[in-house]
Amino acid sequence: MPKTSAKQTYAGAGVDITLAAQAKRHVARLAQSTTRPEVLSGVGPFGALFEFKGYRKPVIVSSVDSVGTKTRIAIALGKYDTVGIDIVNHCINDIFTCGAEPLFFLDYIGIRVAAPERVSAIVSGLTAACKEAGCVLIGGETAQLPGVYHGDDYDLVGFVIGVVAKDKIITGREINTGDAVIGLPSNGLHTNGYSLARRVFGETAAKLNRHSHELGKTIGEALLEPHTSYYRQLKPLLPSIRGMAHITGGGIVGNIPRSLPDGMAVRLDSTQWTVPPIFRLLQRKGNIETKEMYQTFNMGIGMVLICAPEKTGLIIKRVPGAKLVGEVVKQKGDARVIIDGAGYRRDKI
Amino acid sequence: MPKTSAKQTYAGAGVDITLAAQAKRHVARLAQSTTRPEVLSGVGPFGALFEFKGYRKPVIVSSVDSVGTKTRIAIALGKYDTVGIDIVNHCINDIFTCGAEPLFFLDYIGIRVAAPERVSAIVSGLTAACKEAGCVLIGGETAQLPGVYHGDDYDLVGFVIGVVAKDKIITGREINTGDAVIGLPSNGLHTNGYSLARRVFGETAAKLNRHSHELGKTIGEALLEPHTSYYRQLKPLLPSIRGMAHITGGGIVGNIPRSLPDGMAVRLDSTQWTVPPIFRLLQRKGNIETKEMYQTFNMGIGMVLICAPEKTGLIIKRVPGAKLVGEVVKQKGDARVIIDGAGYRRDKI
Repeated sequence: MPKTSAKQTYAGAGVDITLAAQAKRHVARLAQSTTRPEVLSGVGPFGALFEFKGYRKPVIVSSVDSVGTKTRIAIALGKYDTVGIDIVNHCINDIFTCGAEPLFFLDYIGIRVAAPERVSAIVSGLTAACKEAGCVLIGGETAQLPGVYHGDDYDLVGFVIGVVAKDKIITGREINTGDAVIGLPSNGLHTNGYSLARRVFGETAAKLNRHSHELGKTIGEALLEPHTSYYRQLKPLLPSIRGMAHITGGGIVGNIPRSLPDGMAVRLDSTQWTVPPIFRLLQRKGNIETKEMYQTFNMGIGMVLICAPEKTGLIIKRVPGAKLVGEVVKQKGDARVIIDGAGYRRDKI
Repeated sequence: MPKTSAKQTYAGAGVDITLAAQAKRHVARLAQSTTRPEVLSGVGPFGALFEFKGYRKPVIVSSVDSVGTKTRIAIALGKYDTVGIDIVNHCINDIFTCGAEPLFFLDYIGIRVAAPERVSAIVSGLTAACKEAGCVLIGGETAQLPGVYHGDDYDLVGFVIGVVAKDKIITGREINTGDAVIGLPSNGLHTNGYSLARRVFGETAAKLNRHSHELGKTIGEALLEPHTSYYRQLKPLLPSIRGMAHITGGGIVGNIPRSLPDGMAVRLDSTQWTVPPIFRLLQRKGNIETKEMYQTFNMGIGMVLICAPEKTGLIIKRVPGAKLVGEVVKQKGDARVIIDGAGYRRDKI
C-alpha cells in the first residue's frame, strides 16, 4: 500500500551517523597519542583492552564524574579544549586520594550534534591531560541525543581506572590528633559551583568577556581555568601522606570529613591561606553568605593533605603554594571541620 | 559596604546538595546489594576499590555507553527502572564480545534535579541487571546540572570493567570463510534508534499508551522493553565462539564488520529470521526505506555469533531463539554485509 507521508531517516531525526563516524576518526587519532604498551589494539572492537601485569597485590580504583555546568561557560566563550583537561584532572585527583596511579581513562560526550571540530577540541584537552599523567585515553563514546541536549549544550563525563598496591592504600587510619592539615592551592573553581557562579556572573559572552582589574583577566578566563592535577607533584610524597581530600562539590567542609577516621575533626585557621580574588568577587557580586561559600566552593584550596607534624616542612618545601592551614583534633559534637579566623567569622570574607 | 541585591545560594541556583545527599544514600543502599568479596569498602571515599586477584594473564576490558534518547520514552511513561537494566546489559554485551566477564560497573546520571524516587528507580534497574550478571555496582555519580538538562530530561551513562585471560580473548582471527553466522533474538530496539522512533511514534504519554493489536501491547511498552543481556546464556559456549558482534548503533550492517578479519564479509539470508512487529510498524508508519532500517535498528537480531559450521547445532540447541542466518564469505568490493532474501530487496520488509 503506498504511503503518502514523507520518508523518515535517522539523519532527518537529528542523528547523523556519518558525522559521528567522522568525529570518531578524529578522536581515535588524538587518543592514539596517549597509548601505553599495555594497550592491546586491533582486538576487542566493542571494548578497550588493557593488559594488566607487573602489579603486586593490585587493587583497582575507579571513579566517574562530569565537569558540570562549566561546559556552559566554555560554550559561551567558544573554547572547548579546557573542559577536557578539567575532567581528566578531576578524576585523577579523586582516585589519587587513596594513593592510586591512573592507568586509563574513558570519556563520554552527550551532545545534540557531534560537530567534529568541537568534539576534537574537547578530546585534545583530554589527551593533553592524560599524557601529562601517563594515563591512556583508551576509549569513549560520543552520543548524539537530540531532544535531551539542546542548542550547543553538551555533557562531558569521565571515567578513570587506576591501581594501588593493597598495602599502600591511603586509608586515613594512621591519622592522629595533632596531625598537620596542609592546603594545596586551587587556581579557581576547578569544576564545582558553576551553577551558582553562572547565576551571579551571567553566562553570555558579553558578560564573561568583561575584563576585571581585581582578577587581572576577564571573568570568563578566570572561570575557565583548568582543574589542577595534583598527581605529578604529590606522587613522590605519598609515603609521607596519611590522608587526602580532593575539594570538590561540598567544598572544604563537605570533603575533608571523607578522609578522616571516625571521631576526628580538623580545625582550620582561615588566615593561613589567601582566598583567591575570583571567590571574593563571586561572594560580593552574589551577596553570598560566607558559610554558603565554604560549602559550595573550594575557596582556594583544591586538595587537602594530612600528615604527621614532622613531615609538614618537607611537603611545604616540595609542593609550590602548599600551606599549613590547620590540625587534626578530637571531634566534639557534629562539626568535623571547624574554621577559625577573622575572615570566616565575618559575614563577608 | 552593604549590598542591596538578594542573597544568592547554591540551592537557589538550582543545585540542592541536601537532595543530592539523600539520593546518594538511597543509591548506596541499593548498590550494596550487588557487592562481591573483592570490593574493599570503608576506604577510598573518593574512588571505588576492587581487589584484583586470582586472574591468570588478565586483560582488563572496559566500555562506556549511554541509553540514548530511550530516556525520553521512559520519562513520558513515568517508568524509570527499565533504563537502568538497559545500560548495564548494553555495556556487558559490549565487553562480552571479546570474551570478558564483567567485574564492576559505574553509572552517571546527569539531571536537572535529583528527585530521590526517580534516581532510586533508575538505580534499582542498574542493581537488578548487575546482580543478574554477578557484576558489582561499585560507584557512580548523580550530577544536578540545571541549564544543561531541562524539565524531566536526564542522561544515563554506564561504564563497565571486565576481565579476560589474554589467551582467551575472542579476536576474530580464527574466523574462516564458510563459518556459520548465528543471530540471537532481540526483544525490541534495545538502546538504538530512539531518536528516529520518537519522531515516528511521537513521545507523548497519550501516543505511547495506545494499544497496538499488531504488537499485542502498547507502543510505549514495546519501546521500553529492556535491552537483552546475552552474557549468562553465552558464557558456557565461549569455547565454541570465534567472533561476536553486539548489534548497536549502525545496526547489523554497521556492527558485524567490527568482528570480522580483514578481507572477510558475511552473507545473510533475511528469510531466516523474523523481523519483530515493532520494526515493521516503525517502518510502515515512518515510511522508512529498508536499507535505512537495517543500518539504524537491530531488526530482531541483538547479537551475532560466528562459529565453525560444526558448532552451529550445539549453539542453536542451547540458546533460545538462536538461528543460523548466514555464512562468512570472502569480501568482494566494499560490502562486508550482504543481505539476501525477498524481504530485504523489497522497498518494504
